[in-house]
Amino acid sequence: MNRRDVARTLAGAAFVPAILASAAGVAQPVNRDPSRPKIAMLVYPDMILLDLVGPQTVFSLAMADIHLVWKTRAPVTTDVGLAVAATTTFADCPRDLDVLFVPGGLKGSVALMGDEEVLTFLDDRARNAKYVTSVCTGALVLAAAGLLKGYRATSHWYVRDLLGLLGATVVPDRLVVDRSRVTGGGVTAGLDFALTLAALLRDEDFARRIQLILEYDPKPPFDAGAPERNGSIAEDIRHRRAPLLEAAREAALRAGRRLPL
Amino acid sequence: MNRRDVARTLAGAAFVPAILASAAGVAQPVNRDPSRPKIAMLVYPDMILLDLVGPQTVFSLAMADIHLVWKTRAPVTTDVGLAVAATTTFADCPRDLDVLFVPGGLKGSVALMGDEEVLTFLDDRARNAKYVTSVCTGALVLAAAGLLKGYRATSHWYVRDLLGLLGATVVPDRLVVDRSRVTGGGVTAGLDFALTLAALLRDEDFARRIQLILEYDPKPPFDAGAPERNGSIAEDIRHRRAPLLEAAREAALRAGRRLPL
Repeated sequence: MNRRDVARTLAGAAFVPAILASAAGVAQPVNRDPSRPKIAMLVYPDMILLDLVGPQTVFSLAMADIHLVWKTRAPVTTDVGLAVAATTTFADCPRDLDVLFVPGGLKGSVALMGDEEVLTFLDDRARNAKYVTSVCTGALVLAAAGLLKGYRATSHWYVRDLLGLLGATVVPDRLVVDRSRVTGGGVTAGLDFALTLAALLRDEDFARRIQLILEYDPKPPFDAGAPERNGSIAEDIRHRRAPLLEAAREAALRAGRRLPL
Repeated sequence: MNRRDVARTLAGAAFVPAILASAAGVAQPVNRDPSRPKIAMLVYPDMILLDLVGPQTVFSLAMADIHLVWKTRAPVTTDVGLAVAATTTFADCPRDLDVLFVPGGLKGSVALMGDEEVLTFLDDRARNAKYVTSVCTGALVLAAAGLLKGYRATSHWYVRDLLGLLGATVVPDRLVVDRSRVTGGGVTAGLDFALTLAALLRDEDFARRIQLILEYDPKPPFDAGAPERNGSIAEDIRHRRAPLLEAAREAALRAGRRLPL
């Protein structure tokens, strides 16, 4: 189904075509309805595309006004090789957001933890945002910007302890809602995250309807998704990723020294 | 994390950059390793991007050699507005595939059910494919090509009965494996589908590792993902989507008349 059909399905109302992000970087006609929730989703080099597309699908069904934001509108590469172009530059991003969202991607997140332009933008838009949110290693970027200081938060299991170096209270859960901060665990937590946020932004009935359209009644083939029940696989992944995880720790320590904790 | 890091994580071995699909339609250098599972994923106008990206993320972590295939390499639009360009045209698609995959998107799938060029391509590549697969309404396209005749199969809950018009035995499950046919339910079933297929293509340990990297330990916020436990929402969605669902039924009847059942 395309978004227009879905919007009709959900709202039973005429639908104005909204965000047509073009990965080719070509502008599409955009009509923005001020009554729709306004969501800015960061896109950046080396992000995990599924971190973006899971929540984006839910927000799209929730008829949100979605901005994919980055420094420029040049396409950025993602883990699966598909390029994604921002629809909106930092300069053009609305100041009164309902949701500010950062997806993950370990290598890309580590790079952003020391990127002043990105951290300054996030800090600025977070001031007026109703919800400041992330999935996966995106929480490291929020934390490096000082935005999780004093909040309970989570992240991908193999980096979530680093949030503690940046003033957050680490919670080893798949989804953590603490006042305006909503953070999810690794990659696939984006679905649980987005449905929860859809209920907060609209209402629970609306979120339930989206969940049924997406047939989100998961039946994982293995009980392999949680590190606490898969210790030896987790240890092996940590070992193989040690250099990048160490780089993440160093980036957190550096970012922590710059924050007024 | 990007794919190169992931491949290192998984294999602990040097990695040759492989499929770099460019949504801008610009060719990227491609080195294809013949020992890797060869997967063709159909992309088409009005498909649901999450139907593609969920499985693609898993297959990418399984170090598959992924071809995004379509008639041309011109970008096609998707439900969330992001455009995706095929990496490989029908003409250039390998003949000895491990996996042939069709994602969903109701409106787009209905259009494909009467598209001879698409049906002929699928029928041809299915002959030598180890697995012929789909998620969501993609099963309607496989069925219209005659590829589910005599097989047990599933699809998105609101169209899966139509598979019976095309010679399949409809099974109301989230995932159905019947010999070479592997079909998934609506949208998010793509994750359960792809992890199952990764275990079939590689082995269970490999699939478990991917599941932990993706932290796939789902905790849906509501019990709203299955129609049998959400009858009134399902009825409402069916009612609102009636014209498109009726078009799907007509397309199935038309396709059925052309198949030697």
